[in-house]
Amino acid sequence: MASQHEGGLTASDPVRIEPRLASLRSAIDSFIVMDVMSQAAAREAAGHRVIHMEVGQPGTPAPLLAREAAKRAIDEQALGYTLGLGSASLRAGIARHYRDTYDVEVAAERIVVTTGSSAGFVLAFLALFDQGARVALPEPGYPCYRQILKALGQQPVPLVTGPQSRWMPTRDSIAALAAESGGLDGVLIASPSNPTGTMLEPERLREIAEFTEQQRIWFISDEIYHGLTYSQPAVTALAYSDEAIIINSFSKYFSMTGWRVGWMIVPERFVRTIERLAQNLYIAPPSISQVAALAALDARDELEANKVVYAANRALLLEALPRFGFDKIVPADGAFYLYCDVSHLTDDSLAFASRMLDETGVAVTPGIDFDPVRGRNFIRFSYAGATADMCEAVDRLSRWHVLNN
Amino acid sequence: MASQHEGGLTASDPVRIEPRLASLRSAIDSFIVMDVMSQAAAREAAGHRVIHMEVGQPGTPAPLLAREAAKRAIDEQALGYTLGLGSASLRAGIARHYRDTYDVEVAAERIVVTTGSSAGFVLAFLALFDQGARVALPEPGYPCYRQILKALGQQPVPLVTGPQSRWMPTRDSIAALAAESGGLDGVLIASPSNPTGTMLEPERLREIAEFTEQQRIWFISDEIYHGLTYSQPAVTALAYSDEAIIINSFSKYFSMTGWRVGWMIVPERFVRTIERLAQNLYIAPPSISQVAALAALDARDELEANKVVYAANRALLLEALPRFGFDKIVPADGAFYLYCDVSHLTDDSLAFASRMLDETGVAVTPGIDFDPVRGRNFIRFSYAGATADMCEAVDRLSRWHVLNN
Repeated sequence: MASQHEGGLTASDPVRIEPRLASLRSAIDSFIVMDVMSQAAAREAAGHRVIHMEVGQPGTPAPLLAREAAKRAIDEQALGYTLGLGSASLRAGIARHYRDTYDVEVAAERIVVTTGSSAGFVLAFLALFDQGARVALPEPGYPCYRQILKALGQQPVPLVTGPQSRWMPTRDSIAALAAESGGLDGVLIASPSNPTGTMLEPERLREIAEFTEQQRIWFISDEIYHGLTYSQPAVTALAYSDEAIIINSFSKYFSMTGWRVGWMIVPERFVRTIERLAQNLYIAPPSISQVAALAALDARDELEANKVVYAANRALLLEALPRFGFDKIVPADGAFYLYCDVSHLTDDSLAFASRMLDETGVAVTPGIDFDPVRGRNFIRFSYAGATADMCEAVDRLSRWHVLNN
Repeated sequence: MASQHEGGLTASDPVRIEPRLASLRSAIDSFIVMDVMSQAAAREAAGHRVIHMEVGQPGTPAPLLAREAAKRAIDEQALGYTLGLGSASLRAGIARHYRDTYDVEVAAERIVVTTGSSAGFVLAFLALFDQGARVALPEPGYPCYRQILKALGQQPVPLVTGPQSRWMPTRDSIAALAAESGGLDGVLIASPSNPTGTMLEPERLREIAEFTEQQRIWFISDEIYHGLTYSQPAVTALAYSDEAIIINSFSKYFSMTGWRVGWMIVPERFVRTIERLAQNLYIAPPSISQVAALAALDARDELEANKVVYAANRALLLEALPRFGFDKIVPADGAFYLYCDVSHLTDDSLAFASRMLDETGVAVTPGIDFDPVRGRNFIRFSYAGATADMCEAVDRLSRWHVLNN
């Protein structure tokens, strides 16, 4: 084609206009696990069986009580918009949940129902931080934190963790990062953590909550994996600071990922700020999901039974994976993840995970989703599926030639 | 309390620390109609009857086919996350909808399912515009456009419309605004418009689509009220430009507000950009809502029957309202709104609407939600409710002393 133009433009040549490009702020990374899901979906569409250990979601549906409530609501309600902060009954139900689960009193007025924890992060980041604000994020950690911050013009600051502190930040590591990086506007911590599954001990959480409040650093506590702990229960940051911003969701313990409903708890003086942002950016969370979520709060028996399955899956994998080379697993206390050092097998976890999917049908998430540097040497297994699937994954991996040469 | 401190601080006085405040970017206005909804909900909680003509949502539930599909999905599917761009079947269904409704071919790959049109705006603004970008918005217009832009650090530029162009922008008004305001990065137009209900004629839409493409100004076409037109059907901007960004939703014609599901159509080279943003900011739209939306595409009979009711309500109000003082109504072609000049009754539409709600139980939206200046003299009636409610509203307003002195 180029040769046509060698003699210069003629009258009949169209003027070449460069296509307009996307904004600079949109140049964020993909959420890689979603890309792995796409690759897995393509394999399934081609007739292959895939064992999903990539995505952090239960294989179970919403609990029966939630499903029944949703069906009743479909028959009996118009399911129009709720108020922007969510339905009053669900906000009251979540307040009861804090009393029952944590023995913490929180006014329903401070609870904001959100369209999943995703909306909680967007709303918190917009409400707390201006352009250029510096927010410390655990590394490894949930990748969307940093991508959302970047898209909103804020600055993620890596808060590197490692085995010496069970892969959790400490008061001292936050203080050191604040000192060496020219100050922090916020710090975000998930306990139990994604991808490591490790947790802060209550005393360490208290130190961080008190230190950040004293230093006027916003503390955002991502408590989405609460309820999914296998030794001691998790403590909410709210027990130590009314200034902590709590983000949680019905996706994990309550087994309702696709329903997109979560909540946040904010200081009282922030409720109106969050309400204005939520009204304008979301209008309201999905109505049917709010009905289902309210019922899910009473489904403790079914949810605890789900957790028994996760515990069994966890035990199965912790026993089996080391037998064929996955022997460097971070000691997880909660969530439904095992974060596994595979540096003896690869330094390109994305290629490794892609090859594993192609050759065994087992989908896992490459560590680079959580840690752009050291994550090249890690993969994350999610064990939120059925035990039979975990058994089959073990069987397939045990026969994978990559692990047997 | 102040007297205790008159002699200065003592050792036992706590050091007074000012509470940390919200970000500057979050200082946006509330979505006033949502505040009116709160006031109305409070009245209802106190046992009063409210006729809802404030909120732009059908009184009808999702169509039967959608409700049945949702209930089947609850029984038969896990309803976990879909892919970030939405389910493949719904994307294909929306592509068919363009063929059937507009006779326009669009590849399913260019269609992005979103969590309501709200997510469509956030994704479009982030993908197209950097910090400080200047985006023209019709005034009067949907208020969330400017609040979302502001929260994202972008700059709304009012594109004032009036009766001389049936309250719609024109190519010339856009060109003039671009010239006098130092250039525009984008322009957003809704046709039919909220709050006026007026529409662009196809030739005017073509002029704008071609002009903006030629001037490299992004054209975002909000087509959420398509399907709800009472003379000629609306034409999609896609018919005139593959560069137009189309935003639409299942909320209005499809009667599914609370389900939070919509879509956007973007140039092919933007799909991956939008996908990355959507994965990180939303993960995916609600799964059950996507199932219901797919079925709603086949519910044309029920949806057209809803429209017959809107048309009857519209005729009723256009006949009755002028009889008691609401006689300056913008000539609406579509949507389910009547935008009414009440300058002879008030220059404070917020107070006027609040008083109307208190004294008659009829909730309407003050014009300042749509136009901070001239909106002081306007109110918006939504006639998406039941005809019986419209009759009762007419009856109550006819007896309201404010209109009868």
